[in-house]
Amino acid sequence: MNDTYTPRPEDHFTFGLWTVGNRGRDPFGDQVRPALDPADSVRHLAELGAYGVNFHDNDLVPFGASAAERDKIVRNFRRALEETGLKVPMATTNLFYHPVFKEGAFTANDPKVRRYAIAKTLDSIDLGVELGAEIYVLWGGREGVECDAAKDPRAALDRYAEALNVLCEYVRDRNYKLRFALEPKPNEPRGDMFLPTVGHALAFIGHLEHPEMVGLNPEFAHETMSGLSFHHAVAQALWAGKLFHIDLNGQRIGKFDQDFRFGSEGIRDAFYLVKLLEDSKWNGMRHFDAHAYRTEDQAGVWEFARGCMRSYLILREKAQRFYEDEEIMAALREAKASGIKEPTIPAGGGRDSIAGLRSEKFDLDGMASYGYGHERLDQLVLELLLGVR
Amino acid sequence: MNDTYTPRPEDHFTFGLWTVGNRGRDPFGDQVRPALDPADSVRHLAELGAYGVNFHDNDLVPFGASAAERDKIVRNFRRALEETGLKVPMATTNLFYHPVFKEGAFTANDPKVRRYAIAKTLDSIDLGVELGAEIYVLWGGREGVECDAAKDPRAALDRYAEALNVLCEYVRDRNYKLRFALEPKPNEPRGDMFLPTVGHALAFIGHLEHPEMVGLNPEFAHETMSGLSFHHAVAQALWAGKLFHIDLNGQRIGKFDQDFRFGSEGIRDAFYLVKLLEDSKWNGMRHFDAHAYRTEDQAGVWEFARGCMRSYLILREKAQRFYEDEEIMAALREAKASGIKEPTIPAGGGRDSIAGLRSEKFDLDGMASYGYGHERLDQLVLELLLGVR
Amino acid sequence: MNDTYTPRPEDHFTFGLWTVGNRGRDPFGDQVRPALDPADSVRHLAELGAYGVNFHDNDLVPFGASAAERDKIVRNFRRALEETGLKVPMATTNLFYHPVFKEGAFTANDPKVRRYAIAKTLDSIDLGVELGAEIYVLWGGREGVECDAAKDPRAALDRYAEALNVLCEYVRDRNYKLRFALEPKPNEPRGDMFLPTVGHALAFIGHLEHPEMVGLNPEFAHETMSGLSFHHAVAQALWAGKLFHIDLNGQRIGKFDQDFRFGSEGIRDAFYLVKLLEDSKWNGMRHFDAHAYRTEDQAGVWEFARGCMRSYLILREKAQRFYEDEEIMAALREAKASGIKEPTIPAGGGRDSIAGLRSEKFDLDGMASYGYGHERLDQLVLELLLGVR
Amino acid sequence: MNDTYTPRPEDHFTFGLWTVGNRGRDPFGDQVRPALDPADSVRHLAELGAYGVNFHDNDLVPFGASAAERDKIVRNFRRALEETGLKVPMATTNLFYHPVFKEGAFTANDPKVRRYAIAKTLDSIDLGVELGAEIYVLWGGREGVECDAAKDPRAALDRYAEALNVLCEYVRDRNYKLRFALEPKPNEPRGDMFLPTVGHALAFIGHLEHPEMVGLNPEFAHETMSGLSFHHAVAQALWAGKLFHIDLNGQRIGKFDQDFRFGSEGIRDAFYLVKLLEDSKWNGMRHFDAHAYRTEDQAGVWEFARGCMRSYLILREKAQRFYEDEEIMAALREAKASGIKEPTIPAGGGRDSIAGLRSEKFDLDGMASYGYGHERLDQLVLELLLGVR
Repeated sequence: MNDTYTPRPEDHFTFGLWTVGNRGRDPFGDQVRPALDPADSVRHLAELGAYGVNFHDNDLVPFGASAAERDKIVRNFRRALEETGLKVPMATTNLFYHPVFKEGAFTANDPKVRRYAIAKTLDSIDLGVELGAEIYVLWGGREGVECDAAKDPRAALDRYAEALNVLCEYVRDRNYKLRFALEPKPNEPRGDMFLPTVGHALAFIGHLEHPEMVGLNPEFAHETMSGLSFHHAVAQALWAGKLFHIDLNGQRIGKFDQDFRFGSEGIRDAFYLVKLLEDSKWNGMRHFDAHAYRTEDQAGVWEFARGCMRSYLILREKAQRFYEDEEIMAALREAKASGIKEPTIPAGGGRDSIAGLRSEKFDLDGMASYGYGHERLDQLVLELLLGVR
Repeated sequence: MNDTYTPRPEDHFTFGLWTVGNRGRDPFGDQVRPALDPADSVRHLAELGAYGVNFHDNDLVPFGASAAERDKIVRNFRRALEETGLKVPMATTNLFYHPVFKEGAFTANDPKVRRYAIAKTLDSIDLGVELGAEIYVLWGGREGVECDAAKDPRAALDRYAEALNVLCEYVRDRNYKLRFALEPKPNEPRGDMFLPTVGHALAFIGHLEHPEMVGLNPEFAHETMSGLSFHHAVAQALWAGKLFHIDLNGQRIGKFDQDFRFGSEGIRDAFYLVKLLEDSKWNGMRHFDAHAYRTEDQAGVWEFARGCMRSYLILREKAQRFYEDEEIMAALREAKASGIKEPTIPAGGGRDSIAGLRSEKFDLDGMASYGYGHERLDQLVLELLLGVR
Repeated sequence: MNDTYTPRPEDHFTFGLWTVGNRGRDPFGDQVRPALDPADSVRHLAELGAYGVNFHDNDLVPFGASAAERDKIVRNFRRALEETGLKVPMATTNLFYHPVFKEGAFTANDPKVRRYAIAKTLDSIDLGVELGAEIYVLWGGREGVECDAAKDPRAALDRYAEALNVLCEYVRDRNYKLRFALEPKPNEPRGDMFLPTVGHALAFIGHLEHPEMVGLNPEFAHETMSGLSFHHAVAQALWAGKLFHIDLNGQRIGKFDQDFRFGSEGIRDAFYLVKLLEDSKWNGMRHFDAHAYRTEDQAGVWEFARGCMRSYLILREKAQRFYEDEEIMAALREAKASGIKEPTIPAGGGRDSIAGLRSEKFDLDGMASYGYGHERLDQLVLELLLGVR
Repeated sequence: MNDTYTPRPEDHFTFGLWTVGNRGRDPFGDQVRPALDPADSVRHLAELGAYGVNFHDNDLVPFGASAAERDKIVRNFRRALEETGLKVPMATTNLFYHPVFKEGAFTANDPKVRRYAIAKTLDSIDLGVELGAEIYVLWGGREGVECDAAKDPRAALDRYAEALNVLCEYVRDRNYKLRFALEPKPNEPRGDMFLPTVGHALAFIGHLEHPEMVGLNPEFAHETMSGLSFHHAVAQALWAGKLFHIDLNGQRIGKFDQDFRFGSEGIRDAFYLVKLLEDSKWNGMRHFDAHAYRTEDQAGVWEFARGCMRSYLILREKAQRFYEDEEIMAALREAKASGIKEPTIPAGGGRDSIAGLRSEKFDLDGMASYGYGHERLDQLVLELLLGVR
C-alpha cells in the first residue's frame, strides 16, 4: 500500500475503546467477538499509527468495580499508554447501558436518577482527567422520550442545562483543563432525543452559565440519519467557534445508527468534510466512532480501524489536489465562488449606504441568464474523487 | 357541525395569500385552478372566521409592477381588509421564484444578486409595515447548494448574518415595530439549504448584531421532512424566547414538501404541538402555510381552509380535556412527570452541594426496576385523541 | 373502560412469545425486565382476551437444549395452551441471533451455514406443527449485506428460492397443513436486506416451485421504515391472494425498527389498514409484533398488550361507522369513488372497442375543472378518527 | 480529457428530450432556460456521442397540436435523426401534466378520464413506433392518492391491469415490435403512488394477460427515495428476466425527486449498478432521466449530459478492473463469495437428501468464529473507486 496513506500519530487519529472493542451485538443478534483487553487495544492502535484512544468510564472500569479494581485497571491501562505513547484526548460517561437510566439521565423525571447521573459523570471526569483528557464528550443517549405526554421538553432543557452548569462549576472548581463537547443525535435508542442536531445543541449552549466551556462533538452518522448535510453542520459549528471534537464514521440517510467505517458510505459528504477540516486548519482530533461489521473476527476489526484512517488520508490528499487543479480553479471562478467572501455592502449598513442600495440599477435579465457552471464543477470534483484526474 | 369547532377571529388563525391562492402547479403538472383576486381571498377568509392574512410582496403586487399599479392594488386590498376587519400580522419577500435568485439571494455568490435581494426585501418591508405587519418572515428558499464545491458554507453564514444585520438596522432606523422570524428548511428546492432546522436557525441568531429582533418561524412540514419532532423543536424555540411565528400544515417524514392541510398527517405530533402552544399561553398567530390538494377546485380550497382551523380547535379542546382526565393525571404521577420541573440540586451547584451529591447513596436496583407506566399513559392519550374517552 | 373495546378470542388477536417476553435490551442498553416463562405468557395473554400465541423455536426451546429438555418444555407449554384454550396459529425460526448466521442463513455464502439454516428450520417446522401452527413465517433477518462486493444478489435470490423449495417439498412430503409467509424488511440488522418490501417478496414468490404454498406476512413497521404506505402494500398482497399473515405495530418513517404498540404511531395508516382488513373480510390472525417501551416493568408489558388490541377494536368500530356516515358517503360520491370499480372498457379490449375508444370525444375542460372534494372527504374521515362525528 | 471516457454510440447512452430540454422550473421557481428545439437536442446529443433520444408525446408534439402540425414536427425531427444517426429506442406518454389527469390517469376514479388516458397512450404508441421505438415506458405519475378514503387500492390495481391489458392487446393487434416497461415511484407528485417500487411492479406484472410483454424501467432516484438499494432492485429485475429499460440519475435518500446528474450522488450504489449491468451483459439502453441544476444555462446542460456519460464510463472501467485486482480477488475468496453460486443441496430436495441434511454434523463454533473479511474487501473496493489502486 502507498505510504502516503499510512497513518502517523501527527495525523491525530483517535478511536474509542468501545469502537475496536465492539463485540458485534445488535438488536437481533448476540455478540460475535470475544472481549478485548483495553491495554491490548492500546497496543494495536499504536501499531496502526493512531494518536490516541478515548473511553467511557465503563469501557475501562466495569460498572460497580471496587476502588482497588479500578486502580489496578487504570495502572495497567496507563502502562500501555506510556509504553506506546498513545494519548487519551477525550473521555465520556456511559449514561445509557444500565437500566437505571432507562427513563433518562440528566433529564430523567426522577431527581434521584438525575443526581446519580451527575455523580457518575463527576467520577468519570476525574478518571478522564487523571488519564489526560482535555475534552469531555456528553452524548445524551437516554435523554428523550417515546411517550410525549410523559415529559415536558422545556423542563427537560432546564434540567439538561442545570446538569451542564454543575459539571462546568465542578471543572472550574478543580481547575481542570477540560472542555465539554455535546454530541447531538435525533433518535435511537429513544423515539425522539433532545438536542437532535448540531443546530439544536449549538443553540442550547447559548443558555448555559459558562458557554465558553461547552462546544460540539458532531457525528457523521447522527446528522446524516436526519438527511442533513454533515459538512454544513460542521461548518456552522466552526463558524460559531464551537467545533471541540468530531466523530467520524459512515451512515446512510434514514436508517438505524449504522456507525460504519469512515468513508464506506457517503463518500461525497466525507470528502467535503475532510476538505472543510483541512481548509479551516482545525487542530482537534480526528476521532472514529464506528465499529466493524458483525461479519468480522478480530483481524477484521483491525482492518476496519486501518481503513478509517486510510480513507481520511486519501480524502485529505484529494482536498489538497483540489486547489492544484487548474480546471477546478477555473470552474470556481465561473461559479463566482470567491464572491461569497466579499461583504455585500462594503460601506456597512448605515442609512446612506442603504439608500444607495435601493437606488442601484440591477440588470436583472443579465443576472438571471448567467450560467454558474455547477454541472461542470461538480463533475470535475467527482472525477478528482474517482481518481481519474 | 359542532359550534365548538367554528373558528373566530379571537382564535388568531391566519393564512397566506399564497396558500388559498395556490393554483395546484407541481413539478410534473400545470396549474389547475384560476387565479384568485387577493381581495376575494380576504373576503372568503373573513367569512370563514380567520383573523388575518399574510403575503409575499409578489403575492399582492406582481413582479415589475409600476408604482401606480402597486398603489392601486394596495388600495383595493386595504379596502377589503377594512371591510372585513382582517389583519395583516405578517409579511415576507419572494426571493425564490425569479431566475435572478437561482444561485441564492442573501447568500448568492454574486454580490449584485445579494444587494438586489436586500433591496427587494426593504421595499417589501415597507409594503408589509404599510399594511400593518409586525412580523417579517424570512424563508431562504434559494439559500443553499447542490454542488458543494461552489460555495463555502461559513462565508455563506457571514453573508446571511450581514443581510439580517442590514435589515435590522433599517427597521431600527425607520422605527418600525417589526421583528424578524427565520423559517428553517432542510432541502427543496435546493439540494441542501442553510439553517436547515429550528436548531440551526436558533444558533445563528446568537451571532447577529440585534439578536433580540430576530426569532423563529418554525414550520411543521419543514422539521418533519427531516424526521425531527416538531413539537420538541417548537418547545426549544419557546424555551429560548424565540417563537415569533409558526407555520402549521401536514407532512410525512422523508418526502417532498407536501404542505398538506393541518392535521391531515401527523395527528399525534399536531396534538402535542397544539397542547404545547396552549400550555405555554403563546400569544402569536396560528398561521397555516399549506395548500389544497391538486384534485380540488376553488370550493375545495375553502374546505381546505376550514379544515385547517377546525382541526386546530378540535385538538385544542382535547389538550384542555387532557388535564381534566383523572386517569391521565394518575398516569402522569406514575410517570413522575412533575419531577422534571424540580431542580436536580436544589442547593445549587456549589462545592458543598456537589460533595454532598457524590456521597449520596443511590438505590440503583430500586430505581432500575421502577416501571414508568408509559404504555398506559400513551394509550390513554391515544384514546383521548380518538375520542373514545 | 368501554366493553366494546375489550378483546375476545373471536377477534383473533395473537402475540409472539418474543413480544410480551421482550426484556428491553437495545443497541445501547442492557435488558431491564426479568425473563418470562412461556407458560405464564400464555396465561396472561388468555386473560387479556387474545386468541393465540406464536413463537420462534428458541423463544420456547433454548438453543442447544437436549431432546429431554425440549420435550419437558413443550409439555408444559402445551398444558398452558390446553388450560387456557389459546392456540398457536403461527411459528417461525430464529435464524438471526446466533453468530453462525452472521453472514446470512438461507443466503449465507457458506453452503454449510445454509444447510444448517435449513436443518434448523425443518426442526422448527416440526415443533410448530406439533403445536398446531398452520402458518410458518420466514423473516430473513440476516439475508442481506453491508459490503456489496461480497455477495451477488442474483445468486442470493437463487439460494433463497432453493431454500423455500426445499421447505415446501418437506411440508408436502409430510402432509403438513402448513403454508409459508415471507416477512419483508428493508434493512436492520443488515445494511440492505433481500426482499426489502412486500412488493419484492410478492414478485419473488412467482419464481418458486410451489408458489401456492407461499404468501406474505407484511409488517407495519417494516414497510413504514421505507416511507411506503402500509395499507397500499397490504392491499396489493390481498389483491394477489397472498396475505397469509400480518404483523401489526407502530413505526415512524426513516427510523430504526421501533416495533411500538399498534396505533401509537401512524394512526391514519393504522385506520386505513384496519378498514382494509375488515372490508376485505380477511379471516387471518391479527398478530402484534411489537414490544413494550424500555421504560416499562412487567405490568407495563401487559398494558402494552392490552393497548394493541384496544386500538384495533377502536379503529375497527370507526371503520364500520365510516359506512354509516352520510356526509362521508356523499363525499365519496363527489369523489366518484365507486367509479374505480367499473371496467374502463366494458366491452373489453378488442379491436372494435379500441377503435371506439379512440374516436370518443372527451370534454377535457369539463373533466379538468371538476373538483373531487378530497379536502372535505379527508377532513370528515379525520373527524371520524378524532371522535368528533 | 481521457479518451477512454469519451462516449460513443456503441455505449448505448440515451437521453429524454425532457431531460436536456428541462427548463429549470421547480415548485418554488420559474423556468430559467429558453425552450430547446427537439431537432437541436438531437444534434447536440449526437455530437456528444449519445446513441439515442427518447420522448413523451408532448415533448415532441405539443398538447392539442393539429394533425398537420404533428406531421411537420415529426418530419423535422425525423430529419435530424437521419442526419445524425441517432435512434429513438423508447417512447412514453405524458399522463401527468394536464389538469385532466389530476385525480389519476389509468387509475382515475372517472372512467372517462381513464378512457382518455388510454386513447392518448394509443396515439402516443403510434408516434413512438413510427419513430422506431421498441420499448414503451409507463410511469404512473398521477396513479396514486393523498386522501386514502377516495380510492380503493385493490380496484385501482384492477384498473391499472386492465389498461395494460388493452395496451398489450393493441400492440399485438398491430403487430408492433414493442414491449412495455413500468417505471415505479413511491411518491411525488402524489402523496402515495401505486406500484411504488421495483418489487411492487414486478409482482403486478404476474397478474397481466400478457406478462411476457411487460417488464421494468427502474429509476435510480425513485428506488433511492425510499432508501432501498437500487442495485439490489435491478438485480431482482434481471433475475426475473424483466429489466427492459433503465433510468440513471442521482438522488439522496428521503428527499424530493432530485433527478441529479448520474454519479453526482450515491457513487457507491452507482458503481455496483454499473458493475451489475456489465457483469450481466445487459444489452439494453443506458438512459439518463435527469436534468441540469437550475443554476445552469444551456452550456451547463450540455456539460450535465457529458458528465452523465463520462461517469458511467469511468465506473465501467472500474468494474472491469475489479476483476483484475488480485487483492480484491483474494478478499472475495476470504468472503467465500463464490459459495453463493453453489447449490445448497446439490442432490436436490428429495426425501433422502433432506434426511441427510438433518443428520449432518455442523461445527457451529467454527462456522460462528470465521471472519469474512468484509471490512478489508469493502475498503479495497472503496480505494478502487477513489482511484488509489
